[in-house]
Amino acid sequence: MMNMTNSSRIGFVGVGRMGANMARCLNDAGFPVSAVYDVNTDEAKALSEELNTLLAASLHEVTQHSDVVITVVTDDNAMQAIYLDGDDTLLQGAEGTLFINCATVTPAIHQTIRTACDAAGAEVLECPMASSIPQARNGELYLMCGGKASVFKAAMPIIDALSSQAVYIGEVTTAATMKALVNMVMNINTAGAAEGLGLADALGLDLDLVRHIFSQTGANSRALQTDGEDMQRRGHEAYFSAAHAAKDSGIALKMGKDEGLPMVLAEATKNQYDTLVKHNLGHLDKSGIAELTFKDRMPK
Amino acid sequence: MMNMTNSSRIGFVGVGRMGANMARCLNDAGFPVSAVYDVNTDEAKALSEELNTLLAASLHEVTQHSDVVITVVTDDNAMQAIYLDGDDTLLQGAEGTLFINCATVTPAIHQTIRTACDAAGAEVLECPMASSIPQARNGELYLMCGGKASVFKAAMPIIDALSSQAVYIGEVTTAATMKALVNMVMNINTAGAAEGLGLADALGLDLDLVRHIFSQTGANSRALQTDGEDMQRRGHEAYFSAAHAAKDSGIALKMGKDEGLPMVLAEATKNQYDTLVKHNLGHLDKSGIAELTFKDRMPK
Repeated sequence: MMNMTNSSRIGFVGVGRMGANMARCLNDAGFPVSAVYDVNTDEAKALSEELNTLLAASLHEVTQHSDVVITVVTDDNAMQAIYLDGDDTLLQGAEGTLFINCATVTPAIHQTIRTACDAAGAEVLECPMASSIPQARNGELYLMCGGKASVFKAAMPIIDALSSQAVYIGEVTTAATMKALVNMVMNINTAGAAEGLGLADALGLDLDLVRHIFSQTGANSRALQTDGEDMQRRGHEAYFSAAHAAKDSGIALKMGKDEGLPMVLAEATKNQYDTLVKHNLGHLDKSGIAELTFKDRMPK
Repeated sequence: MMNMTNSSRIGFVGVGRMGANMARCLNDAGFPVSAVYDVNTDEAKALSEELNTLLAASLHEVTQHSDVVITVVTDDNAMQAIYLDGDDTLLQGAEGTLFINCATVTPAIHQTIRTACDAAGAEVLECPMASSIPQARNGELYLMCGGKASVFKAAMPIIDALSSQAVYIGEVTTAATMKALVNMVMNINTAGAAEGLGLADALGLDLDLVRHIFSQTGANSRALQTDGEDMQRRGHEAYFSAAHAAKDSGIALKMGKDEGLPMVLAEATKNQYDTLVKHNLGHLDKSGIAELTFKDRMPK
Protein backbone atom coordinates (compact mmCIF):
# COMPACT_ATOMS: atom_id res chain seq x y z
CA MET A 1 0.00 0.00 0.00
CA MET A 2 1.03 3.64 -0.38
CA ASN A 3 2.55 5.37 2.56
CA MET A 4 0.23 7.81 4.23
CA THR A 5 1.18 11.47 4.25
CA ASN A 6 -0.28 14.53 5.85
CA SER A 7 -2.43 15.04 2.77
CA SER A 8 -4.12 11.65 3.30
CA ARG A 9 -7.84 12.22 3.75
CA ILE A 10 -9.06 10.89 7.08
CA GLY A 11 -12.62 9.93 7.94
CA PHE A 12 -13.89 9.27 11.43
CA VAL A 13 -16.59 6.83 12.53
CA GLY A 14 -17.56 7.21 16.16
CA VAL A 15 -16.94 10.75 17.37
CA GLY A 16 -17.67 10.54 21.06
CA ARG A 17 -15.14 12.24 23.29
CA MET A 18 -12.21 10.04 22.24
CA GLY A 19 -12.92 10.04 18.51
CA ALA A 20 -13.73 13.74 18.36
CA ASN A 21 -10.51 14.67 20.11
CA MET A 22 -8.45 12.44 17.84
CA ALA A 23 -10.07 14.20 14.87
CA ARG A 24 -9.23 17.61 16.37
CA CYS A 25 -5.67 16.45 16.94
CA LEU A 26 -5.18 15.31 13.32
CA ASN A 27 -6.86 18.46 12.05
CA ASP A 28 -4.40 20.55 14.08
CA ALA A 29 -1.55 18.45 12.67
CA GLY A 30 -2.61 19.41 9.13
CA PHE A 31 -4.35 16.23 8.02
CA PRO A 32 -7.53 16.81 6.03
CA VAL A 33 -10.38 15.38 8.10
CA SER A 34 -12.62 14.43 5.24
CA ALA A 35 -15.82 13.07 6.82
CA VAL A 36 -17.34 12.30 10.20
CA TYR A 37 -20.08 9.86 11.13
CA ASP A 38 -21.75 8.81 14.36
CA VAL A 39 -25.04 7.13 15.23
CA ASN A 40 -25.41 10.12 17.53
CA THR A 41 -25.98 12.58 14.68
CA ASP A 42 -25.91 15.63 16.96
CA GLU A 43 -22.34 14.87 17.99
CA ALA A 44 -21.31 14.23 14.40
CA LYS A 45 -22.98 17.42 13.18
CA ALA A 46 -21.31 19.55 15.84
CA LEU A 47 -17.89 18.15 15.00
CA SER A 48 -18.40 18.52 11.23
CA GLU A 49 -19.22 22.20 11.79
CA GLU A 50 -16.29 22.71 14.15
CA LEU A 51 -13.81 21.13 11.73
CA ASN A 52 -15.57 22.38 8.59
CA THR A 53 -15.81 18.87 7.20
CA LEU A 54 -18.41 16.60 5.63
CA LEU A 55 -21.18 15.23 7.85
CA ALA A 56 -21.51 11.82 6.24
CA ALA A 57 -25.07 10.57 5.85
CA SER A 58 -23.94 6.95 5.54
CA LEU A 59 -21.01 4.70 6.33
CA HIS A 60 -20.04 4.06 2.73
CA GLU A 61 -19.93 7.81 2.19
CA VAL A 62 -17.15 8.00 4.79
CA THR A 63 -15.15 5.42 2.87
CA GLN A 64 -15.84 7.19 -0.43
CA HIS A 65 -14.29 10.43 0.84
CA SER A 66 -11.35 8.99 2.77
CA ASP A 67 -7.97 7.32 2.29
CA VAL A 68 -7.97 6.29 5.92
CA VAL A 69 -10.96 5.62 8.17
CA ILE A 70 -10.42 5.71 11.91
CA THR A 71 -13.12 4.02 14.00
CA VAL A 72 -13.71 4.49 17.71
CA VAL A 73 -16.95 2.71 18.52
CA THR A 74 -18.52 1.17 21.59
CA ASP A 75 -18.22 -2.58 21.38
CA ASP A 76 -18.24 -5.69 19.21
CA ASN A 77 -21.84 -5.12 18.12
CA ALA A 78 -20.98 -1.65 16.88
CA MET A 79 -17.97 -3.03 14.98
CA GLN A 80 -20.22 -5.66 13.41
CA ALA A 81 -22.73 -2.96 12.46
CA ILE A 82 -20.31 -0.57 10.75
CA TYR A 83 -18.35 -3.22 8.84
CA LEU A 84 -20.68 -6.10 8.16
CA ASP A 85 -24.40 -5.58 8.76
CA GLY A 86 -27.08 -4.38 6.36
CA ASP A 87 -26.98 -2.38 3.15
CA ASP A 88 -24.66 0.39 4.27
CA THR A 89 -21.17 -0.53 5.52
CA LEU A 90 -17.67 0.86 5.53
CA LEU A 91 -16.49 -1.92 3.24
CA GLN A 92 -18.52 -0.78 0.21
CA GLY A 93 -16.04 0.61 -2.30
CA ALA A 94 -13.26 0.09 0.22
CA GLU A 95 -10.53 -1.21 -2.09
CA GLY A 96 -7.25 0.46 -1.11
CA THR A 97 -8.71 2.05 2.02
CA LEU A 98 -6.87 1.73 5.33
CA PHE A 99 -9.06 1.16 8.38
CA ILE A 100 -7.65 1.86 11.82
CA ASN A 101 -9.79 0.46 14.64
CA CYS A 102 -9.11 2.04 18.01
CA ALA A 103 -11.89 0.74 20.26
CA THR A 104 -11.25 -1.91 22.87
CA VAL A 105 -13.16 -4.85 21.47
CA THR A 106 -12.56 -8.59 21.33
CA PRO A 107 -9.72 -10.19 19.38
CA ALA A 108 -12.42 -12.31 17.70
CA ILE A 109 -14.21 -9.36 16.09
CA HIS A 110 -10.87 -7.95 14.90
CA GLN A 111 -10.18 -11.29 13.21
CA THR A 112 -13.62 -11.27 11.58
CA ILE A 113 -13.14 -7.75 10.26
CA ARG A 114 -9.65 -8.47 9.04
CA THR A 115 -11.03 -11.32 6.94
CA ALA A 116 -13.74 -9.03 5.53
CA CYS A 117 -11.17 -6.32 4.78
CA ASP A 118 -9.00 -8.85 2.95
CA ALA A 119 -12.01 -9.79 0.80
CA ALA A 120 -12.72 -6.12 0.10
CA GLY A 121 -9.12 -5.32 -0.82
CA ALA A 122 -8.80 -3.00 2.17
CA GLU A 123 -6.05 -2.84 4.78
CA VAL A 124 -6.67 -2.82 8.52
CA LEU A 125 -4.83 -2.04 11.72
CA GLU A 126 -6.05 -2.43 15.27
CA CYS A 127 -4.74 0.33 17.51
CA PRO A 128 -6.37 0.14 20.94
CA MET A 129 -5.45 3.01 23.20
CA ALA A 130 -4.14 2.96 26.76
CA SER A 131 -4.88 6.60 27.42
CA SER A 132 -7.75 8.99 27.90
CA ILE A 133 -9.31 12.16 26.55
CA PRO A 134 -6.56 14.75 27.18
CA GLN A 135 -4.01 12.45 25.53
CA ALA A 136 -6.34 12.03 22.53
CA ARG A 137 -6.63 15.79 22.17
CA ASN A 138 -2.89 16.38 22.44
CA GLY A 139 -1.60 13.59 20.22
CA GLU A 140 -0.14 11.81 23.22
CA LEU A 141 -1.96 8.50 23.09
CA TYR A 142 -0.26 5.27 24.03
CA LEU A 143 -1.14 2.93 21.14
CA MET A 144 -0.79 -0.83 20.88
CA CYS A 145 -0.83 -1.72 17.20
CA GLY A 146 -1.71 -5.00 15.52
CA GLY A 147 -1.74 -5.84 11.81
CA LYS A 148 0.71 -6.32 8.97
CA ALA A 149 4.08 -4.75 9.77
CA SER A 150 4.08 -3.10 6.32
CA VAL A 151 0.72 -1.47 7.03
CA PHE A 152 1.87 -0.29 10.44
CA LYS A 153 4.88 1.30 8.77
CA ALA A 154 2.78 2.92 6.02
CA ALA A 155 0.42 4.39 8.63
CA MET A 156 3.22 5.80 10.75
CA PRO A 157 2.66 9.51 9.94
CA ILE A 158 -0.89 9.25 11.28
CA ILE A 159 0.06 7.09 14.25
CA ASP A 160 2.88 9.50 15.08
CA ALA A 161 0.49 12.44 15.05
CA LEU A 162 -1.91 10.68 17.40
CA SER A 163 0.51 9.16 19.87
CA SER A 164 3.48 9.84 22.08
CA GLN A 165 4.26 6.14 21.95
CA ALA A 166 3.07 3.38 19.64
CA VAL A 167 4.17 -0.20 20.15
CA TYR A 168 3.85 -2.73 17.35
CA ILE A 169 2.62 -5.94 18.97
CA GLY A 170 2.15 -8.31 16.01
CA GLU A 171 -0.51 -9.53 13.60
CA VAL A 172 -4.19 -8.63 13.92
CA THR A 173 -5.68 -9.72 17.28
CA THR A 174 -2.41 -9.43 19.21
CA ALA A 175 -2.92 -5.78 20.09
CA ALA A 176 -6.54 -6.34 21.08
CA THR A 177 -5.43 -9.22 23.27
CA MET A 178 -2.75 -7.09 24.90
CA LYS A 179 -5.21 -4.26 25.50
CA ALA A 180 -7.73 -6.58 27.15
CA LEU A 181 -4.97 -7.82 29.46
CA VAL A 182 -3.85 -4.29 30.32
CA ASN A 183 -7.37 -3.28 31.25
CA MET A 184 -8.04 -6.48 33.14
CA VAL A 185 -5.00 -5.92 35.36
CA MET A 186 -5.71 -2.19 35.66
CA ASN A 187 -9.25 -2.96 36.82
CA ILE A 188 -8.01 -5.51 39.37
CA ASN A 189 -5.55 -2.97 40.76
CA THR A 190 -8.31 -0.38 40.84
CA ALA A 191 -10.61 -2.73 42.72
CA GLY A 192 -7.79 -3.58 45.12
CA ALA A 193 -7.06 0.07 45.86
CA ALA A 194 -10.77 0.62 46.46
CA GLU A 195 -10.88 -2.20 49.00
CA GLY A 196 -7.77 -0.95 50.77
CA LEU A 197 -8.93 2.66 50.97
CA GLY A 198 -12.49 1.66 51.92
CA LEU A 199 -11.25 -0.50 54.78
CA ALA A 200 -8.76 2.16 55.90
CA ASP A 201 -11.61 4.67 56.01
CA ALA A 202 -13.84 2.31 58.00
CA LEU A 203 -11.00 1.82 60.51
CA GLY A 204 -10.60 5.56 60.98
CA LEU A 205 -7.21 6.04 59.35
CA ASP A 206 -6.31 9.33 57.66
CA LEU A 207 -6.75 8.57 53.95
CA ASP A 208 -4.23 11.20 52.85
CA LEU A 209 -1.64 9.38 54.95
CA VAL A 210 -2.83 5.97 53.74
CA ARG A 211 -2.49 7.00 50.09
CA HIS A 212 0.95 8.43 50.82
CA ILE A 213 2.10 5.19 52.47
CA PHE A 214 0.51 3.00 49.80
CA SER A 215 2.35 5.05 47.17
CA GLN A 216 5.71 4.37 48.84
CA THR A 217 5.28 0.67 49.46
CA GLY A 218 4.29 -2.59 47.81
CA ALA A 219 0.70 -1.33 47.62
CA ASN A 220 1.56 1.21 44.92
CA SER A 221 -0.01 1.01 41.48
CA ARG A 222 -0.83 3.24 38.56
CA ALA A 223 -4.49 2.78 39.50
CA LEU A 224 -3.79 4.13 42.99
CA GLN A 225 -2.11 7.17 41.45
CA THR A 226 -4.85 7.91 38.93
CA ASP A 227 -7.90 6.95 41.01
CA GLY A 228 -6.99 6.93 44.71
CA GLU A 229 -7.82 10.54 45.47
CA ASP A 230 -11.02 10.32 43.39
CA MET A 231 -12.05 7.28 45.43
CA GLN A 232 -11.46 9.17 48.65
CA ARG A 233 -13.28 12.33 47.56
CA ARG A 234 -15.95 10.61 45.43
CA GLY A 235 -14.86 12.47 42.31
CA HIS A 236 -16.19 9.99 39.78
CA GLU A 237 -16.59 12.09 36.65
CA ALA A 238 -15.94 9.54 33.93
CA TYR A 239 -12.70 9.39 31.99
CA PHE A 240 -13.01 5.65 31.70
CA SER A 241 -16.43 4.49 32.78
CA ALA A 242 -17.34 1.63 35.08
CA ALA A 243 -19.45 0.21 32.23
CA HIS A 244 -16.36 0.13 30.00
CA ALA A 245 -14.37 -1.48 32.79
CA ALA A 246 -17.02 -4.19 33.10
CA LYS A 247 -16.91 -4.78 29.34
CA ASP A 248 -13.11 -4.96 29.15
CA SER A 249 -12.71 -7.21 32.19
CA GLY A 250 -15.37 -9.39 30.57
CA ILE A 251 -13.34 -9.71 27.35
CA ALA A 252 -10.25 -10.85 29.25
CA LEU A 253 -12.23 -13.07 31.58
CA LYS A 254 -13.77 -14.93 28.67
CA MET A 255 -10.34 -15.42 27.08
CA GLY A 256 -9.05 -16.82 30.37
CA LYS A 257 -11.96 -19.17 30.85
CA ASP A 258 -11.59 -20.37 27.26
CA GLU A 259 -8.01 -21.26 28.21
CA GLY A 260 -9.18 -23.05 31.34
CA LEU A 261 -7.33 -20.68 33.67
CA PRO A 262 -8.55 -19.76 37.17
CA MET A 263 -9.34 -16.05 36.72
CA VAL A 264 -10.48 -15.44 40.29
CA LEU A 265 -9.30 -11.83 40.63
CA ALA A 266 -10.55 -10.85 37.17
CA GLU A 267 -13.89 -12.43 37.95
CA ALA A 268 -14.27 -10.74 41.34
CA THR A 269 -13.42 -7.42 39.69
CA LYS A 270 -15.87 -7.88 36.85
CA ASN A 271 -18.58 -8.75 39.38
CA GLN A 272 -17.92 -5.47 41.19
CA TYR A 273 -18.22 -3.45 37.98
CA ASP A 274 -21.32 -5.40 36.97
CA THR A 275 -22.81 -4.51 40.37
CA LEU A 276 -22.19 -0.82 39.68
CA VAL A 277 -23.89 -1.15 36.30
CA LYS A 278 -26.85 -2.95 37.89
CA HIS A 279 -27.23 -0.05 40.31
CA ASN A 280 -27.33 2.34 37.34
CA LEU A 281 -23.85 3.62 38.20
CA GLY A 282 -22.12 2.40 35.05
CA HIS A 283 -21.70 6.02 33.94
CA LEU A 284 -19.34 6.73 36.84
CA ASP A 285 -15.60 6.66 36.28
CA LYS A 286 -13.93 3.35 37.08
CA SER A 287 -12.91 4.94 40.42
CA GLY A 288 -16.62 4.65 41.25
CA ILE A 289 -15.95 1.08 42.34
CA ALA A 290 -15.07 2.69 45.67
CA GLU A 291 -18.78 3.43 46.11
CA LEU A 292 -19.07 -0.32 46.82
CA THR A 293 -16.15 -0.58 49.24
CA PHE A 294 -16.59 2.46 51.46
CA LYS A 295 -19.00 2.00 54.34
CA ASP A 296 -22.42 3.57 54.00
CA ARG A 297 -21.94 4.92 50.50
CA MET A 298 -24.26 2.44 48.83
CA PRO A 299 -27.98 2.27 49.46
CA LYS A 300 -28.97 -1.01 51.14
CA MET B 1 11.52 7.66 79.21
CA MET B 2 15.17 8.26 78.50
CA ASN B 3 16.23 8.90 74.95
CA MET B 4 18.02 6.01 73.36
CA THR B 5 21.62 6.48 72.29
CA ASN B 6 24.08 4.34 70.42
CA SER B 7 25.23 2.92 73.73
CA SER B 8 21.73 1.55 74.43
CA ARG B 9 21.96 -2.22 74.79
CA ILE B 10 19.77 -3.97 72.26
CA GLY B 11 18.42 -7.49 72.54
CA PHE B 12 16.83 -9.43 69.70
CA VAL B 13 14.04 -12.00 69.88
CA GLY B 14 13.44 -13.77 66.60
CA VAL B 15 16.60 -13.87 64.51
CA GLY B 16 15.41 -15.34 61.24
CA ARG B 17 16.66 -13.59 58.14
CA MET B 18 14.96 -10.27 58.92
CA GLY B 19 15.85 -10.13 62.62
CA ALA B 20 19.43 -11.31 62.10
CA ASN B 21 20.07 -8.68 59.45
CA MET B 22 18.61 -5.94 61.61
CA ALA B 23 20.96 -7.06 64.40
CA ARG B 24 23.94 -6.96 62.01
CA CYS B 25 22.87 -3.51 60.87
CA LEU B 26 22.69 -2.11 64.41
CA ASN B 27 25.96 -3.81 65.30
CA ASP B 28 27.62 -2.11 62.33
CA ALA B 29 26.10 1.19 63.43
CA GLY B 30 27.85 0.85 66.80
CA PHE B 31 24.96 -0.22 69.00
CA PRO B 32 25.83 -2.94 71.51
CA VAL B 33 23.77 -5.99 70.57
CA SER B 34 23.44 -7.43 74.05
CA ALA B 35 21.56 -10.72 73.63
CA VAL B 36 19.88 -12.84 71.00
CA TYR B 37 17.11 -15.43 71.34
CA ASP B 38 15.20 -17.64 68.96
CA VAL B 39 13.16 -20.82 69.30
CA ASN B 40 15.47 -22.03 66.55
CA THR B 41 18.52 -22.22 68.82
CA ASP B 42 20.90 -23.01 65.94
CA GLU B 43 20.11 -19.68 64.28
CA ALA B 44 20.44 -17.83 67.56
CA LYS B 45 23.74 -19.55 68.39
CA ALA B 46 25.24 -18.75 65.00
CA LEU B 47 24.29 -15.10 65.27
CA SER B 48 25.55 -14.81 68.85
CA GLU B 49 28.91 -16.14 67.68
CA GLU B 50 28.99 -13.89 64.64
CA LEU B 51 28.24 -10.78 66.68
CA ASN B 52 30.10 -11.94 69.78
CA THR B 53 27.06 -11.45 71.96
CA LEU B 54 25.10 -13.36 74.59
CA LEU B 55 23.08 -16.37 73.46
CA ALA B 56 20.15 -15.95 75.85
CA ALA B 57 18.83 -19.16 77.36
CA SER B 58 15.49 -17.58 78.23
CA LEU B 59 13.29 -14.66 77.28
CA HIS B 60 13.62 -12.86 80.61
CA GLU B 61 17.39 -13.05 80.22
CA VAL B 62 17.10 -10.97 77.04
CA THR B 63 15.19 -8.32 78.96
CA GLN B 64 17.67 -8.46 81.82
CA HIS B 65 20.59 -7.60 79.53
CA SER B 66 18.88 -5.01 77.30
CA ASP B 67 17.57 -1.44 77.34
CA VAL B 68 15.66 -2.12 74.13
CA VAL B 69 14.29 -5.44 72.91
CA ILE B 70 13.47 -5.75 69.22
CA THR B 71 11.15 -8.62 68.30
CA VAL B 72 10.66 -10.09 64.83
CA VAL B 73 8.53 -13.19 65.26
CA THR B 74 6.18 -15.21 63.11
CA ASP B 75 2.62 -14.44 64.10
CA ASP B 76 0.16 -13.62 66.87
CA ASN B 77 0.79 -16.92 68.63
CA ALA B 78 4.50 -16.23 68.79
CA MET B 79 3.82 -12.73 70.17
CA GLN B 80 1.54 -14.25 72.80
CA ALA B 81 4.24 -16.80 73.67
CA ILE B 82 7.11 -14.35 74.16
CA TYR B 83 5.17 -11.72 76.11
CA LEU B 84 2.42 -13.49 77.97
CA ASP B 85 2.55 -17.27 78.21
CA GLY B 86 4.15 -19.48 80.81
CA ASP B 87 6.90 -18.91 83.34
CA ASP B 88 9.42 -17.22 81.09
CA THR B 89 8.41 -14.02 79.31
CA LEU B 90 9.97 -10.80 78.12
CA LEU B 91 7.92 -8.83 80.63
CA GLN B 92 9.65 -10.25 83.72
CA GLY B 93 11.78 -7.47 85.16
CA ALA B 94 10.81 -5.28 82.23
CA GLU B 95 10.29 -1.97 84.03
CA GLY B 96 11.85 0.80 81.93
CA THR B 97 12.52 -1.48 78.98
CA LEU B 98 11.48 -0.40 75.48
CA PHE B 99 10.03 -3.14 73.28
CA ILE B 100 9.93 -2.60 69.51
CA ASN B 101 7.74 -5.14 67.69
CA CYS B 102 8.47 -5.42 64.00
CA ALA B 103 6.48 -8.46 62.86
CA THR B 104 3.29 -8.09 60.87
CA VAL B 105 0.70 -9.29 63.34
CA THR B 106 -2.84 -8.25 64.18
CA PRO B 107 -3.73 -4.89 65.67
CA ALA B 108 -5.52 -6.88 68.40
CA ILE B 109 -2.36 -8.59 69.68
CA HIS B 110 -0.51 -5.25 69.67
CA GLN B 111 -3.27 -3.84 71.85
CA THR B 112 -3.05 -6.81 74.24
CA ILE B 113 0.72 -6.46 74.54
CA ARG B 114 0.53 -2.73 75.00
CA THR B 115 -1.78 -3.27 77.98
CA ALA B 116 0.62 -5.83 79.43
CA CYS B 117 3.58 -3.48 78.89
CA ASP B 118 1.72 -0.69 80.68
CA ALA B 119 1.17 -3.02 83.64
CA ALA B 120 4.86 -3.99 83.64
CA GLY B 121 6.08 -0.39 83.46
CA ALA B 122 7.57 -0.99 80.01
CA GLU B 123 7.25 1.04 76.85
CA VAL B 124 6.28 -0.36 73.48
CA LEU B 125 6.35 0.61 69.83
CA GLU B 126 5.01 -1.31 66.88
CA CYS B 127 7.19 -0.87 63.82
CA PRO B 128 6.05 -3.17 61.02
CA MET B 129 8.31 -3.12 58.00
CA ALA B 130 7.44 -2.63 54.35
CA SER B 131 10.75 -3.93 53.06
CA SER B 132 12.75 -7.07 52.79
CA ILE B 133 16.08 -8.66 53.67
CA PRO B 134 18.58 -6.44 51.81
CA GLN B 135 16.93 -3.35 53.28
CA ALA B 136 17.14 -4.87 56.77
CA ARG B 137 20.85 -5.51 56.32
CA ASN B 138 21.57 -2.02 55.01
CA GLY B 139 19.50 0.05 57.43
CA GLU B 140 17.12 0.99 54.66
CA LEU B 141 13.85 -0.34 55.99
CA TYR B 142 10.58 1.47 55.44
CA LEU B 143 9.01 1.53 58.90
CA MET B 144 5.46 2.36 59.92
CA CYS B 145 5.50 3.22 63.61
CA GLY B 146 2.71 3.13 66.18
CA GLY B 147 2.82 4.02 69.86
CA LYS B 148 3.21 7.08 72.06
CA ALA B 149 4.72 9.97 70.10
CA SER B 150 7.17 10.56 72.97
CA VAL B 151 8.38 6.96 72.77
CA PHE B 152 8.75 7.18 68.99
CA LYS B 153 10.89 10.28 69.47
CA ALA B 154 13.00 8.68 72.19
CA ALA B 155 13.63 5.63 70.00
CA MET B 156 14.62 7.71 66.99
CA PRO B 157 18.38 6.91 67.03
CA ILE B 158 17.60 3.19 66.69
CA ILE B 159 14.83 3.72 64.16
CA ASP B 160 17.11 5.99 62.14
CA ALA B 161 19.82 3.35 62.07
CA LEU B 162 17.38 0.69 60.83
CA SER B 163 15.44 2.68 58.28
CA SER B 164 15.71 4.98 55.31
CA GLN B 165 12.22 6.20 56.10
CA ALA B 166 10.06 5.88 59.20
CA VAL B 167 6.53 7.25 59.26
CA TYR B 168 4.76 7.84 62.55
CA ILE B 169 1.20 6.66 62.06
CA GLY B 170 -0.39 7.13 65.51
CA GLU B 171 -1.14 5.24 68.70
CA VAL B 172 -0.54 1.51 69.11
CA THR B 173 -2.54 -0.55 66.56
CA THR B 174 -2.56 2.15 63.86
CA ALA B 175 0.73 1.04 62.32
CA ALA B 176 -0.26 -2.63 62.42
CA THR B 177 -3.53 -1.71 60.76
CA MET B 178 -1.73 0.28 58.06
CA LYS B 179 0.72 -2.56 57.47
CA ALA B 180 -2.08 -5.10 57.08
CA LEU B 181 -3.70 -2.81 54.50
CA VAL B 182 -0.44 -2.33 52.60
CA ASN B 183 0.12 -6.06 52.36
CA MET B 184 -3.50 -6.76 51.49
CA VAL B 185 -3.33 -4.38 48.52
CA MET B 186 0.16 -5.57 47.56
CA ASN B 187 -1.07 -9.17 47.53
CA ILE B 188 -4.09 -8.25 45.39
CA ASN B 189 -1.84 -6.48 42.90
CA THR B 190 0.50 -9.48 42.91
CA ALA B 191 -2.38 -11.85 42.25
CA GLY B 192 -3.64 -9.56 39.48
CA ALA B 193 -0.25 -9.44 37.78
CA ALA B 194 -0.07 -13.23 38.00
CA GLU B 195 -3.42 -13.59 36.29
CA GLY B 196 -2.50 -11.12 33.56
CA LEU B 197 0.87 -12.71 32.85
CA GLY B 198 -0.50 -16.25 33.06
CA LEU B 199 -3.24 -15.45 30.55
CA ALA B 200 -0.81 -13.61 28.28
CA ASP B 201 1.42 -16.67 28.31
CA ALA B 202 -1.46 -19.01 27.53
CA LEU B 203 -2.40 -16.78 24.58
CA GLY B 204 1.14 -16.93 23.19
CA LEU B 205 2.19 -13.33 23.77
CA ASP B 206 5.84 -12.47 24.40
CA LEU B 207 6.00 -11.95 28.18
CA ASP B 208 8.95 -9.55 27.99
CA LEU B 209 6.82 -7.32 25.78
CA VAL B 210 3.77 -7.81 28.00
CA ARG B 211 5.68 -6.76 31.11
CA HIS B 212 7.07 -3.76 29.24
CA ILE B 213 3.60 -2.67 28.13
CA PHE B 214 2.04 -3.34 31.53
CA SER B 215 4.78 -1.19 33.09
CA GLN B 216 3.92 1.75 30.84
CA THR B 217 0.14 1.60 31.19
CA GLY B 218 -2.66 1.40 33.73
CA ALA B 219 -1.60 -2.18 34.52
CA ASN B 220 1.57 -1.03 36.27
CA SER B 221 2.14 -1.74 39.94
CA ARG B 222 4.98 -2.14 42.37
CA ALA B 223 4.08 -5.83 42.51
CA LEU B 224 4.57 -6.11 38.75
CA GLN B 225 7.99 -4.48 39.11
CA THR B 226 9.16 -6.64 41.99
CA ASP B 227 7.55 -9.95 41.00
CA GLY B 228 6.67 -9.89 37.30
CA GLU B 229 9.92 -11.28 35.98
CA ASP B 230 10.05 -13.88 38.76
CA MET B 231 6.55 -15.00 37.80
CA GLN B 232 7.61 -15.37 34.18
CA ARG B 233 10.85 -17.23 34.95
CA ARG B 234 9.56 -19.17 37.99
CA GLY B 235 12.18 -17.58 40.24
CA HIS B 236 10.33 -18.03 43.52
CA GLU B 237 13.12 -17.93 46.08
CA ALA B 238 11.35 -16.40 49.06
CA TYR B 239 11.88 -12.83 50.11
CA PHE B 240 8.30 -12.63 51.33
CA SER B 241 6.74 -16.05 51.41
CA ALA B 242 3.36 -17.12 50.12
CA ALA B 243 2.57 -18.36 53.64
CA HIS B 244 3.22 -14.86 55.00
CA ALA B 245 1.07 -13.38 52.25
CA ALA B 246 -1.78 -15.70 53.22
CA LYS B 247 -1.40 -14.66 56.86
CA ASP B 248 -1.33 -10.93 56.14
CA SER B 249 -4.23 -10.98 53.71
CA GLY B 250 -6.09 -12.93 56.37
CA ILE B 251 -5.47 -10.21 58.96
CA ALA B 252 -6.88 -7.51 56.68
CA LEU B 253 -9.72 -9.71 55.48
CA LYS B 254 -10.88 -10.31 59.03
CA MET B 255 -10.77 -6.59 59.79
CA GLY B 256 -12.85 -5.91 56.70
CA LYS B 257 -15.41 -8.57 57.49
CA ASP B 258 -15.67 -7.28 61.05
CA GLU B 259 -16.57 -3.92 59.48
CA GLY B 260 -19.15 -5.55 57.22
CA LEU B 261 -17.32 -4.56 54.04
CA PRO B 262 -17.36 -6.64 50.84
CA MET B 263 -13.72 -7.73 50.60
CA VAL B 264 -14.06 -9.71 47.39
CA LEU B 265 -10.60 -9.05 45.97
CA ALA B 266 -8.85 -9.60 49.29
CA GLU B 267 -10.77 -12.83 49.75
CA ALA B 268 -10.00 -14.15 46.27
CA THR B 269 -6.32 -13.34 46.86
CA LYS B 270 -6.21 -15.02 50.26
CA ASN B 271 -7.84 -18.10 48.74
CA GLN B 272 -5.08 -18.26 46.13
CA TYR B 273 -2.34 -18.05 48.77
CA ASP B 274 -4.16 -20.61 50.92
CA THR B 275 -4.22 -22.90 47.89
CA LEU B 276 -0.45 -22.58 47.54
CA VAL B 277 -0.02 -23.41 51.22
CA LYS B 278 -2.33 -26.44 50.87
CA HIS B 279 -0.15 -27.68 48.02
CA ASN B 280 2.91 -27.38 50.28
CA LEU B 281 4.13 -24.35 48.33
CA GLY B 282 3.83 -21.83 51.15
CA HIS B 283 7.62 -21.58 51.28
CA LEU B 284 7.74 -20.02 47.79
CA ASP B 285 8.02 -16.27 47.41
CA LYS B 286 4.70 -14.47 47.01
CA SER B 287 5.47 -14.42 43.26
CA GLY B 288 4.79 -18.17 43.44
CA ILE B 289 1.10 -17.35 43.08
CA ALA B 290 1.88 -17.45 39.35
CA GLU B 291 2.28 -21.22 39.68
CA LEU B 292 -1.54 -21.24 39.94
CA THR B 293 -2.24 -18.91 37.00
CA PHE B 294 0.13 -20.19 34.32
CA LYS B 295 -1.16 -23.12 32.32
CA ASP B 296 0.24 -26.54 33.12
CA ARG B 297 2.45 -25.43 35.98
CA MET B 298 0.34 -27.02 38.70
CA PRO B 299 -0.19 -30.76 39.04
CA LYS B 300 -3.83 -31.69 38.44
